[in-house]
Amino acid sequence: MAPNSRSYQVSATPFTVFGHLLFIAVATLVFVWLLKFREAIMAYKTIPGRRDVQVQRVVHLTLQTIALGSGILGIVSVFKFQDEAEIPDMFTLHSWLGMIAICLFGLQLLLGFFSFVFPGAESYSRAGYTPWHIFGGLVIFFLAIATAEMGLLLKFLRLGLFRSQEALIVNFIGLLLFLFAVAVGLSVVLTRGY
Amino acid sequence: MAPNSRSYQVSATPFTVFGHLLFIAVATLVFVWLLKFREAIMAYKTIPGRRDVQVQRVVHLTLQTIALGSGILGIVSVFKFQDEAEIPDMFTLHSWLGMIAICLFGLQLLLGFFSFVFPGAESYSRAGYTPWHIFGGLVIFFLAIATAEMGLLLKFLRLGLFRSQEALIVNFIGLLLFLFAVAVGLSVVLTRGY
Repeated sequence: MAPNSRSYQVSATPFTVFGHLLFIAVATLVFVWLLKFREAIMAYKTIPGRRDVQVQRVVHLTLQTIALGSGILGIVSVFKFQDEAEIPDMFTLHSWLGMIAICLFGLQLLLGFFSFVFPGAESYSRAGYTPWHIFGGLVIFFLAIATAEMGLLLKFLRLGLFRSQEALIVNFIGLLLFLFAVAVGLSVVLTRGY
Repeated sequence: MAPNSRSYQVSATPFTVFGHLLFIAVATLVFVWLLKFREAIMAYKTIPGRRDVQVQRVVHLTLQTIALGSGILGIVSVFKFQDEAEIPDMFTLHSWLGMIAICLFGLQLLLGFFSFVFPGAESYSRAGYTPWHIFGGLVIFFLAIATAEMGLLLKFLRLGLFRSQEALIVNFIGLLLFLFAVAVGLSVVLTRGY
């Protein structure tokens, strides 16, 4: 070994392994987040039977709460990362729409909780709020999808991608995300007759 | 006048005026396009009366055809501009989703024409296709909105905007576009009971 080469006396292997594990963790988190979010919206379709409305409601609320938590965790991570990398916050349309989406999501969850779960809610006011809850949920969902598409575009540009394999993969993620949004929209429309 | 300054023997005034006119033309075109598109989707709500279904249909078809024509004209202009400026075509997610949106729009118009206008269409097959036509229209509309938001983000980044007055204006256009999409969605949902 060349005597002039700097030696840190520490093997690179554990960090390489840790790096790969981190990558798998991030990828898994993205998929879990998408899966939870999808399942949460579609809980009333996925869980069969008209008698199990109470179960459907608990599953829907639980998954949406996990989704909101994951979303907030994601945004906190972004702020932390941008703070450390000295990238300024909240100046693109992506960040604006993303922040609006997460705030509306929190509001939607709160309104939904007090309308459908809290014991004091009257059944006729529930029935009146339901279509607005569904419409609001779809608006927030499509806002989140649009924000994610813009996020993919930002990443694409900041990485300087262009007609490479990586560029194709990023764009195909964007295409799949659009198809996913169509599937969720169709599922909601067909389930509720809305 | 300084003798060393290069003189083209042509006044700059007509070009300045032409430049301003071009700017007004582009701005007007964007607004006309949005207005036509909005009016086209909302024609069944905007034009009152249940007896005037035939009028509503003609207005809807006419405006959507103008919208498709404007969309194709817009895309042709982009290709022409990028060709002249030697910017490569069709590599961002913005371009992919935009191209898919315009192709689906053309398909939707064609299917709609043969289902609702062409004399051979049976009335029961019309009734069966109507909810799919509305769902398809909303999907294409929201795809167009997402593409426009990505277009604003691209322009923002390529102009190198950052916390300036211009940056705020671009982002507020994006916010208004989102509110506009919510209004159109709500209008369709409330009109059709869909």
